[in-house]
Amino acid sequence: MSIGAHRTAANVLRLRRLGIDTYQESILFMSAECPVCRSEGWEALARVRVAHLDHAIVATLNVTTSDLLAPDEASLSEAAWRALGASEGDEVVLSHPGPVASLGHVRAKVYGSRLEPPAFAAIIRDIVAGRYSSIHLSAFVTACAGGRLDQDETIALTRAMIDVGERLRWSVAPVVDKHSVGGLPGNRTTMIIVPIVAAHGLTMPKTSSRAITSPAGTADAMETLAPVTLDIPAMRRVVEREGGCIVWGGAVRLSPADDIIIRIERPLDIDSEGQLVASVLSKKVAAGSTHVVIDLPVGPTAKVRNPDAAKALGDLLVVTGAALGLRVAVMEGDGTQPVGGGIGPALEALDVLAVLRREPAARPELRERALVLAGRVIEFSREVPPGAGYDTARALLDSGAAWKKFQAICEAQGGMCEPPAAAHRHDVVAERAGHIEVIDNRLLARVAKLSGAPRAKAAGLALHVRLGTRVERGEPLYTLHAESPGELAYARMYADQNRDIVSVSGGTQ
Amino acid sequence: MSIGAHRTAANVLRLRRLGIDTYQESILFMSAECPVCRSEGWEALARVRVAHLDHAIVATLNVTTSDLLAPDEASLSEAAWRALGASEGDEVVLSHPGPVASLGHVRAKVYGSRLEPPAFAAIIRDIVAGRYSSIHLSAFVTACAGGRLDQDETIALTRAMIDVGERLRWSVAPVVDKHSVGGLPGNRTTMIIVPIVAAHGLTMPKTSSRAITSPAGTADAMETLAPVTLDIPAMRRVVEREGGCIVWGGAVRLSPADDIIIRIERPLDIDSEGQLVASVLSKKVAAGSTHVVIDLPVGPTAKVRNPDAAKALGDLLVVTGAALGLRVAVMEGDGTQPVGGGIGPALEALDVLAVLRREPAARPELRERALVLAGRVIEFSREVPPGAGYDTARALLDSGAAWKKFQAICEAQGGMCEPPAAAHRHDVVAERAGHIEVIDNRLLARVAKLSGAPRAKAAGLALHVRLGTRVERGEPLYTLHAESPGELAYARMYADQNRDIVSVSGGTQ
Repeated sequence: MSIGAHRTAANVLRLRRLGIDTYQESILFMSAECPVCRSEGWEALARVRVAHLDHAIVATLNVTTSDLLAPDEASLSEAAWRALGASEGDEVVLSHPGPVASLGHVRAKVYGSRLEPPAFAAIIRDIVAGRYSSIHLSAFVTACAGGRLDQDETIALTRAMIDVGERLRWSVAPVVDKHSVGGLPGNRTTMIIVPIVAAHGLTMPKTSSRAITSPAGTADAMETLAPVTLDIPAMRRVVEREGGCIVWGGAVRLSPADDIIIRIERPLDIDSEGQLVASVLSKKVAAGSTHVVIDLPVGPTAKVRNPDAAKALGDLLVVTGAALGLRVAVMEGDGTQPVGGGIGPALEALDVLAVLRREPAARPELRERALVLAGRVIEFSREVPPGAGYDTARALLDSGAAWKKFQAICEAQGGMCEPPAAAHRHDVVAERAGHIEVIDNRLLARVAKLSGAPRAKAAGLALHVRLGTRVERGEPLYTLHAESPGELAYARMYADQNRDIVSVSGGTQ
Repeated sequence: MSIGAHRTAANVLRLRRLGIDTYQESILFMSAECPVCRSEGWEALARVRVAHLDHAIVATLNVTTSDLLAPDEASLSEAAWRALGASEGDEVVLSHPGPVASLGHVRAKVYGSRLEPPAFAAIIRDIVAGRYSSIHLSAFVTACAGGRLDQDETIALTRAMIDVGERLRWSVAPVVDKHSVGGLPGNRTTMIIVPIVAAHGLTMPKTSSRAITSPAGTADAMETLAPVTLDIPAMRRVVEREGGCIVWGGAVRLSPADDIIIRIERPLDIDSEGQLVASVLSKKVAAGSTHVVIDLPVGPTAKVRNPDAAKALGDLLVVTGAALGLRVAVMEGDGTQPVGGGIGPALEALDVLAVLRREPAARPELRERALVLAGRVIEFSREVPPGAGYDTARALLDSGAAWKKFQAICEAQGGMCEPPAAAHRHDVVAERAGHIEVIDNRLLARVAKLSGAPRAKAAGLALHVRLGTRVERGEPLYTLHAESPGELAYARMYADQNRDIVSVSGGTQ
């Protein structure tokens, strides 16, 4: 029996809010002078069970050596407050957590063993229960990377991730979806595909993410046009009325394990195929989808760097999907440059509106990519033969049916508005004449973030050129947009220091 | 060029001390309302370069959402204050850290590549410079575990760890050392071996660790008899005068990379052979040793669990040592129960004193193990033939030469004192007559820690039985020692709840 599992005067502390945000990691703060800390022999980084009423979490201990906390007080990181559902002044009972049995499976994986489905189920349950520290999560992600998950293990991991979250059910079939494997700025095809597909009569309950490291996620761009923070009943009402929606996935929490694992994968920058497949497909199955198109941009600064990698990943997606009753179609595409000219929530929304409204300024590559993908989705419906989807999609876009459907979806989600415009702008111009040779997607995203995106909705940049475009000296390459003069200055400084964000051929610098 | 690398008004904050101890991880605390945070687009868990005068560290960002910090203030974890050498009120300049190039090698290892020596050198340099977060460190440890380091890689890793720390040189040869691979409570042979070996005339500059998860380290036990926090010049004076020392390794920092990596290995509980070998041998080479005896206790609750594992680990230690110019001799031993009866700093020191002073109460198994190991060390000297070391060691112990040398070493380290005695004691007794069947090393260590060890120097427990000992009902199995009544009560409660810490055979409970 674990000591302190029961409430005694010795292991009860009063909670005080310090307001420390550690992203998703649960941290417990406790004074080094606190009797519980001393008698338990706890030190910084120990794992501690924190119970409040009938809830309990496991947190990593940070010890305070100042008067920040009194000896009878404790505090929590913001994530831990949320996970525990506690309020300032509440009492918590501290104890040693039981051993985390599923870490034995992680160790087995580290030593090269194959894991059976119950092992993945146990690991994922413990991850969602907050029993893994960042150190444990990193070990799990690392042990599964580098091709160390085979086909069956990938299926088992995906199924385990589905089983710990909510799962939507729909009365219609097919229920379709579309997912882009990340890495390209401005790739806002979703907001064009959903209204086309819904206008065709298919059901497409789309959940999208907000920006994490990028200047905008689809949910951020959509939010400049309509509310996106809908709960599951609200989302269901929109889909039942209009056939489609574009809402923020964070509000519906369809794959809570994925939300936690992604936090660790990002700083590691490890592309684990098995984890990627589990991440994408678990969300789709949880959303109740039956048919999914996966957009796989291939290019040197995209996530998938060459055709061989695309083929291997595509096969794994298709086979894993099939095992879970999900029909997956993979479409490779050009990943060498941004899709669309706007980068930032409002600027990307404007690109989408231009395509839907069939404006002359609409970006042809965004329109084209959206039509190709929407066409493939539409071919999931029985009455559209293979190869005929593109023309059907184009007809729905050109007739205005898609634009009408988009407005209806926005209204159903809570009302449509115009995206905000930035008060402060600056053109970055070509220093010499020539052709555009290279566009660095990564640096471009960085400039857009320095302008204030995604927090400042109107901020970001509008790119005026594509690879191969001929420019004259002094001609604008891109325009910075900012909501404040300070942020504009900051982005300008960075752009001035990095003249190779957009490289122009010809002549020596 | 990285933005913000230069000092501008926009990226300077004033430091305020919050006194938050995150063990060795560098954390930067900054208000979410801070202009730097907002304009840089930083979020919780971002990595930020923090510069103060001509020093800089990389820290993980925690964002405060309360009034804990003003918008123009920042704070650091205790480890980061130390690493940066900053004081309250100092200004720091924040910027984006450059990419950590050596993480590319870690990723290559994750994908199964062999790493060349320069890759290990780059990784270890970045680790010591604080450029790896816990997440990165965990990935490195995991990627190297499970037999994924071959012989050459283990040598390269060990060499890289030596190259980033101080390295002692001695004018004599051989310079000998002894190391026990952990996992057994009360295994304080070092404090007996050093005086025997030094009395024989060999040079043995011993650095030992403090307890990390155990009730006492050798440095903690030694500290109840003499000062152990010596810097390198002071340590050198002791060794030059007496031939040996027993000091705290943390004060001399001979393998700083190891101090960081160990922090991650512990919560993972991953026994990476390559990392273990690099950890042990890097410290020995850095201390200037030429000949080392490794004590390898084998048993089901010890670190090395069976003879095959002991053989493989022993071979790796010998071959890696040879590549680094270090002669390694491995001695396997009984790892099924504690060595010595005391567990806790002062109680372990008393066991050592009893052996050195040849008291009737001296624990025979502690004396025997120390003599075997000291004998093997002594055989490194040219004039002692193989097999003759044990008798030489016994003669030095029985003549009182070792005891005299121990007192001289204590005096040279700053003066000898008697270990403290605990004011509060309680006997845990047998509930029935029988033989001792099992002793759970792990739970025994836990009870000793609940009594207050290692913080309370006199606290811990004294074990009165060994495996196979016949006890009567009501006879004491072990005695709890505590410095306060509260801590004694706490340890008693745990002992009462866990009657199987020491199991007595016969009859049903």
